[in-house]
Amino acid sequence: MAYEFKIRRQVEFSETDMAGIMHYSNFFRYMESVEHGFFRSSGFSVVPKNVDPQVGFPRVHASCDYRKPARFEDIIEVHLLVKEKRSKSLTYFVRFTNLTLQPPEIIAEGKLTVVCVTMTEDGMRASTLPSFMDQIQPAPQEMVDTFFRHRKE
Amino acid sequence: MAYEFKIRRQVEFSETDMAGIMHYSNFFRYMESVEHGFFRSSGFSVVPKNVDPQVGFPRVHASCDYRKPARFEDIIEVHLLVKEKRSKSLTYFVRFTNLTLQPPEIIAEGKLTVVCVTMTEDGMRASTLPSFMDQIQPAPQEMVDTFFRHRKE
Amino acid sequence: MAYEFKIRRQVEFSETDMAGIMHYSNFFRYMESVEHGFFRSSGFSVVPKNVDPQVGFPRVHASCDYRKPARFEDIIEVHLLVKEKRSKSLTYFVRFTNLTLQPPEIIAEGKLTVVCVTMTEDGMRASTLPSFMDQIQPAPQEMVDTFFRHRKE
Amino acid sequence: MAYEFKIRRQVEFSETDMAGIMHYSNFFRYMESVEHGFFRSSGFSVVPKNVDPQVGFPRVHASCDYRKPARFEDIIEVHLLVKEKRSKSLTYFVRFTNLTLQPPEIIAEGKLTVVCVTMTEDGMRASTLPSFMDQIQPAPQEMVDTFFRHRKE
Repeated sequence: MAYEFKIRRQVEFSETDMAGIMHYSNFFRYMESVEHGFFRSSGFSVVPKNVDPQVGFPRVHASCDYRKPARFEDIIEVHLLVKEKRSKSLTYFVRFTNLTLQPPEIIAEGKLTVVCVTMTEDGMRASTLPSFMDQIQPAPQEMVDTFFRHRKE
Repeated sequence: MAYEFKIRRQVEFSETDMAGIMHYSNFFRYMESVEHGFFRSSGFSVVPKNVDPQVGFPRVHASCDYRKPARFEDIIEVHLLVKEKRSKSLTYFVRFTNLTLQPPEIIAEGKLTVVCVTMTEDGMRASTLPSFMDQIQPAPQEMVDTFFRHRKE
Repeated sequence: MAYEFKIRRQVEFSETDMAGIMHYSNFFRYMESVEHGFFRSSGFSVVPKNVDPQVGFPRVHASCDYRKPARFEDIIEVHLLVKEKRSKSLTYFVRFTNLTLQPPEIIAEGKLTVVCVTMTEDGMRASTLPSFMDQIQPAPQEMVDTFFRHRKE
Repeated sequence: MAYEFKIRRQVEFSETDMAGIMHYSNFFRYMESVEHGFFRSSGFSVVPKNVDPQVGFPRVHASCDYRKPARFEDIIEVHLLVKEKRSKSLTYFVRFTNLTLQPPEIIAEGKLTVVCVTMTEDGMRASTLPSFMDQIQPAPQEMVDTFFRHRKE
């Protein structure tokens, strides 16, 4: 059973903006990166090969609350927790900790809901999560309840 | 008094991803673009010149609900409404309508809260909105109440 | 016969970096945007519909020489010229003029070579340019010779 | 003496485009990442602290030749070589090897020239490279001559 994953990222120059901090849209790219790393750590890809029809995981909700900035070359821990699993969707909590600050601080808290779809000629259609994702399970409720320090959920 | 603004964007190739649709993070870039266009239409820039100390508007909350994708070369209307104005912050609602669909459809609904800060040597400090923003006012409550069709707020 | 096209772009906040100028990689996104606008102005899309097998135009060469920065909210004219047309490829020159500077100045000069490919199950294969691109022709040699002011070609 | 550096990157979903491959502009972001990693490995940052006046390294030339695509989740080795060092500028060669291909293949070859500038109130002014960069030296000519396999330089 898998319900959490962490990656570390170092803020790149191209991710900063003229305010001297990481552009807020890049937190959403980091959220996706930790999700895809989570999938790989569970033995599959978000773009699975040899699956017919092809499945995909479009985002239906994304949000982020920002408390402090991430600056160039800061080391950011991105921590994903599976909040909820439904037949056709997954919801994650994602916590960003700036490890360069002394002491390290949680600088942002995000949430992402993705649905499983099959890709057909007519477009996308919601579909039940494939069986190779069975090992992905919601985190224990106690972890979910205490994961966010700052955000009201 | 100004409380809404619209821009049109045509989805660019570099904004798509391998799923063939606009990457979800780019909706947040569009939200910022309509905000900055709104400011310009009100006669000032989000990066005002000749203001001392320099002020900035970091985002403290951003969210988006996605219903349908935006595809390459689709024309997207991005419609901003001022939901709330406080002494140090502004909250916007942003509605994305895909004008290429027949009939046009609302494909996403977003929300953005920004705070005014002054940039000092020590970092950023929350500050009251400058007087040149006085003309920016919340939209009539009735507009706010009916702006989102799909999202529960 | 079509051999040139211009677009205008206003530099966006998300396109700047912490040096306070447009990140150099974004000039390549602008180059692609003027190419795709050029195609649309000629009546077709770079992702043509109802073509079997599907064709694509991957870049095989891209370069840019930078002389002056583009800053937030600057208006940039992006001017494409068809330098060369071969059976399977097109080469463009692209000139960036910062219209916000007084007087306007050429701030960058770029070059792009794209090849036509057909997408097959095995991957991409170089292919002759489709007939709907017949109207695209190289610019008169005199224009090509004088297009770049600063760059040695 | 330091004249080369390597990093590995795994292609992210947000770096792909609707053609299913890494967008060509992202190779330029990777080039910058290996340069900044090279600087850190030499003990300093491209945005040095406690330097007055502040120095920066804008790009004056960037180019890339592409032979094969990079796809989602491919592992790319990015290898930088210092081709030339002048009093106020550095030129790098950058080679991209797709390690996921069997056998690994060089998929792109790039070149970058950066100048040192000091940031003043009036803008940027070319400046000699700071002394903390003394250890950065051009690679042996033999390495430079044989670094690119495909590109004519």
